[in-house]
Amino acid sequence: MKDETKYDDLYRLRHSAAHLMAQAVGELFPGVKYAIGPPIEDGFYYDFELPCPIREEDLERIEEKMREIAARDLPIQREVLSREEAIELEKRLDQPYKLELIRDIPENEEISFYRQGDWVDLCRGPHVESTGKLKHFKLLHTAGAYWRGNEKNKMLTRIYGTIWPTEEELKDYLQRLEEAKKRDHRVLGRELGLFMFSHEVGPGLPLWLPKGAVLRETLMEFMKAEQTRRGYLPVVTPHIGNARLYERSGHLQTYHSKMFPLMRGEEEDETYVLKPMNCPHHIMIYASELRSYRDLPLRLAEFGTVYRYEQSGELTGLLRVRGFTQDDSHLFVTPEQLKEEFKGVVDLMLYTLRRLGLEEYRVRIGVRDPKDDKYIGSDENWEAAQRAIIEAVQDLGMDYEIAEGDAAFYGPKLDLMVRDALRREWQMGTVQVDYNLPERFELEYVGEDGQRHRPIMIHRAPFGSLERMVGLLLEHYAGAFPFWLAPQQVTIIPIADRHLEYAQRVRAYLQEAGFRVEIDSRNEKMGKRIRDAEVQKVPIMLICGDRDVAAQTVSIRKHGEGDLGARSIEATIAYLKELQES
Amino acid sequence: MKDETKYDDLYRLRHSAAHLMAQAVGELFPGVKYAIGPPIEDGFYYDFELPCPIREEDLERIEEKMREIAARDLPIQREVLSREEAIELEKRLDQPYKLELIRDIPENEEISFYRQGDWVDLCRGPHVESTGKLKHFKLLHTAGAYWRGNEKNKMLTRIYGTIWPTEEELKDYLQRLEEAKKRDHRVLGRELGLFMFSHEVGPGLPLWLPKGAVLRETLMEFMKAEQTRRGYLPVVTPHIGNARLYERSGHLQTYHSKMFPLMRGEEEDETYVLKPMNCPHHIMIYASELRSYRDLPLRLAEFGTVYRYEQSGELTGLLRVRGFTQDDSHLFVTPEQLKEEFKGVVDLMLYTLRRLGLEEYRVRIGVRDPKDDKYIGSDENWEAAQRAIIEAVQDLGMDYEIAEGDAAFYGPKLDLMVRDALRREWQMGTVQVDYNLPERFELEYVGEDGQRHRPIMIHRAPFGSLERMVGLLLEHYAGAFPFWLAPQQVTIIPIADRHLEYAQRVRAYLQEAGFRVEIDSRNEKMGKRIRDAEVQKVPIMLICGDRDVAAQTVSIRKHGEGDLGARSIEATIAYLKELQES
Repeated sequence: MKDETKYDDLYRLRHSAAHLMAQAVGELFPGVKYAIGPPIEDGFYYDFELPCPIREEDLERIEEKMREIAARDLPIQREVLSREEAIELEKRLDQPYKLELIRDIPENEEISFYRQGDWVDLCRGPHVESTGKLKHFKLLHTAGAYWRGNEKNKMLTRIYGTIWPTEEELKDYLQRLEEAKKRDHRVLGRELGLFMFSHEVGPGLPLWLPKGAVLRETLMEFMKAEQTRRGYLPVVTPHIGNARLYERSGHLQTYHSKMFPLMRGEEEDETYVLKPMNCPHHIMIYASELRSYRDLPLRLAEFGTVYRYEQSGELTGLLRVRGFTQDDSHLFVTPEQLKEEFKGVVDLMLYTLRRLGLEEYRVRIGVRDPKDDKYIGSDENWEAAQRAIIEAVQDLGMDYEIAEGDAAFYGPKLDLMVRDALRREWQMGTVQVDYNLPERFELEYVGEDGQRHRPIMIHRAPFGSLERMVGLLLEHYAGAFPFWLAPQQVTIIPIADRHLEYAQRVRAYLQEAGFRVEIDSRNEKMGKRIRDAEVQKVPIMLICGDRDVAAQTVSIRKHGEGDLGARSIEATIAYLKELQES
Repeated sequence: MKDETKYDDLYRLRHSAAHLMAQAVGELFPGVKYAIGPPIEDGFYYDFELPCPIREEDLERIEEKMREIAARDLPIQREVLSREEAIELEKRLDQPYKLELIRDIPENEEISFYRQGDWVDLCRGPHVESTGKLKHFKLLHTAGAYWRGNEKNKMLTRIYGTIWPTEEELKDYLQRLEEAKKRDHRVLGRELGLFMFSHEVGPGLPLWLPKGAVLRETLMEFMKAEQTRRGYLPVVTPHIGNARLYERSGHLQTYHSKMFPLMRGEEEDETYVLKPMNCPHHIMIYASELRSYRDLPLRLAEFGTVYRYEQSGELTGLLRVRGFTQDDSHLFVTPEQLKEEFKGVVDLMLYTLRRLGLEEYRVRIGVRDPKDDKYIGSDENWEAAQRAIIEAVQDLGMDYEIAEGDAAFYGPKLDLMVRDALRREWQMGTVQVDYNLPERFELEYVGEDGQRHRPIMIHRAPFGSLERMVGLLLEHYAGAFPFWLAPQQVTIIPIADRHLEYAQRVRAYLQEAGFRVEIDSRNEKMGKRIRDAEVQKVPIMLICGDRDVAAQTVSIRKHGEGDLGARSIEATIAYLKELQES
């Protein structure tokens, strides 16, 4: 699948733009050493070792030079050289990184270069025909990047750019970038008082402020209610476990680099691990009694906080953290139940996305690559599980694509790729079928035949994690959450002190009805208080003045819509209830 | 205060009973070495180094010998010896532990012995007049105990016994012991499917099973609602923090032995700590912005799970664990607000106890010992804080006792000592006033005068921890929780298969009304299903048969009360709502 899309027009355009930028940098900074320069989603980059430091202001100069070279309309030509010729060429050009790359090309593979004018680069291609095709581009920013991503290597300068087939698409993309900056969840999180990070606590460890804690709680309440309705059973397990447990699960061997350092006690047997996943604990609960087929499916659910030791350079707000809470669940099922249970899980995930207002998504089913032998388990099991997943998705009437080789080594999976308001794609939900852990932990149930059988596990987390979901929702809604999710749903603004008592009465009614309400009785002008509530993106404002007190009404203002007029308290509550459901 | 109660009649009785037991053991096991033998709550013990192992069966023999010596009615006489005479005596008796004890007696202190017949023991006293006064006793069990509680020392044999002024009190106590065994929360926890421990996860780390998770949740929901009503703000913080944070708080220096081993990263700065308390994290939130007096009191609340590395030998079910969730809160207040906020906290704690059906308690206020200099902070602050606490309790019209020297080194505190259904006392709630952490973290707020001031912190946790509270409640209620707390509130029993559909309809109504309901449609006789629900201590059973379906009623059975007759579904819901509130 991948290979078909890899070399499409956009790929060529972006790949050639990377070359164009490299040539421009070469002309402006003689002596530059070239590393690599691939096309990426929405653009391209190139990594350089530069003879002098570069500043963001230099980007304009480089861009100008690029336009100049583009105007020359140089043909872009492929040349195949022998290994010796290739080495000779890069030696002459004094390009040590390229020499290293050539060394890594397998003996039997062709070594190709792409030439435009007197500039040439080691490259697999493909490219557009000539530099004249490169028109609608812009350089974006620079960043540091280690050669081969290894922090023991030299730090190089990476320049990012973007290019599009038309000026319109370029403008649209740049606008989306601007919009995304405004919607940066880190900025919004601070402005709306949702969460913070603390140097003294540690990077990547969010602290949820009161409004953020309420938002989390609201998401959890939603999921809890839905899970209870669907027969999930809540459990609560510790955040640590003996190292033995993670040896048995295999995490210590295969997942070690992502785990926090061990807590080593004095006794041999007293080494503890901060849990990177909840599975082993849930398995302990499953294994605590002999299960019968009548007990299955057993759906254990936990809002489990896990810790993963991500590289500090890779931490990004709530999207890449070191501690996060999964809306995790493990379903222990019989082979006969697999398809129906899988369907149930997908149905819950789609229901969740709809409720969150994330209506655009695509479904990708990761199956094994039959030519690869990394997969564990019998062919029979694999066939059955893949069939179960595909049939489940077909039963639900959903479109899907098959990604061969995308399965985990222990079973096939389904990913939901969600598109947000800025048309960016996020991998949000994964359902995995697992034959491995039941095997490692020798899980069993007594079947209808009186014999012992092995259950199958399904791993799933519709939100993924509360952190990542809040990050996505913040950017998707630019902070203006739908009414049911807003941490503060209503601000009541008494115009003058004499309206405060009435405002308090209104608040009591609304709180009784279950809404999250605050009064803003600060000694500020009404206009200022309205503006502040707008900035805080509170969905509803209720303003109380003389006329309201007399008529027992409130004047409603809705975020983004403005004045909706005066209504009685009952009518207001009815209106809010409507909003709550929508 | 302590000294006055220490030497009361019961103390003498139990102290003398310990001597009586020691004399009996000496007569039965010549060559025994005596360690120490104090009176304790409800009884006494004595630690022996015995020439041969002892079994529980031997207790009867010892008890018989004790009765024989009691019948001799030997007068118990005090003798004061010089240090040399004392050493001489214990050398002659070949008592190495006593010699060690004598060595530890300060030079200027009197060295007293108590003699009964030809048996004599190093002892401060006091005692009853003669062995004839010792009548209503019983030996209970044996245990291993290290000399001086240090596991590097020899393991001794400890024998526990009890004695009471009257036979009636003895019988009553033994009955309570029996009852307590039946109510052991570890047994009930297993029987009711509330929680489990796993060797592979680690000792002292409870895993909450579905019913236990619901019970926790119910307790948390209660506390959350109450806290929201009282102006607390929820926060959520990580379970770990950089070691720096705990150095600054002082935990790493003073609390180290109770903390899990450090997680040492490769970088100097990357050492993490599993949090033993939530305070430092909440302080980071307080300190994340400049606070004004207008922002105070700031009441940050979190159900914070903390980890403490208790000795594995001291772990006891849910009562002494290594991981537990506190209903924690830290209130940041101005000195002027201290009294009112303290009152608010005590009011919430008492409200909580009432709601949990724990009506008997006493209040103990720990103040500093003015002769001791371990306390930090100014005399003025101490005076003000102690006055604030005492006035708060007086304002609430509560009885209290003052325990001088019982304050923490950083501030005075209040303890609630709760008595359960078996008349055992539990220290459940503590409120502490803290001047220390605001100082260490240099916390500030801008006062009305525009100057920077230091806030005071109040630490409090009405439940203490969810684990300990569930342990107490399980034993207090012998597992039969009040309706509002019961993890499963209602079991619906359809008499035959043809009543199942009706049962499902009833369940839907009840769930809609917010109750936790299950149907028991197992293919078992009705009597068996009723018995099972009784054993599971489900408060309400609703039985549906032909007559119920015809009349649209259910037949109600209440746990411990039996049949309450048939009622309509509406009347049943009304009845359950009443139960929910009571």
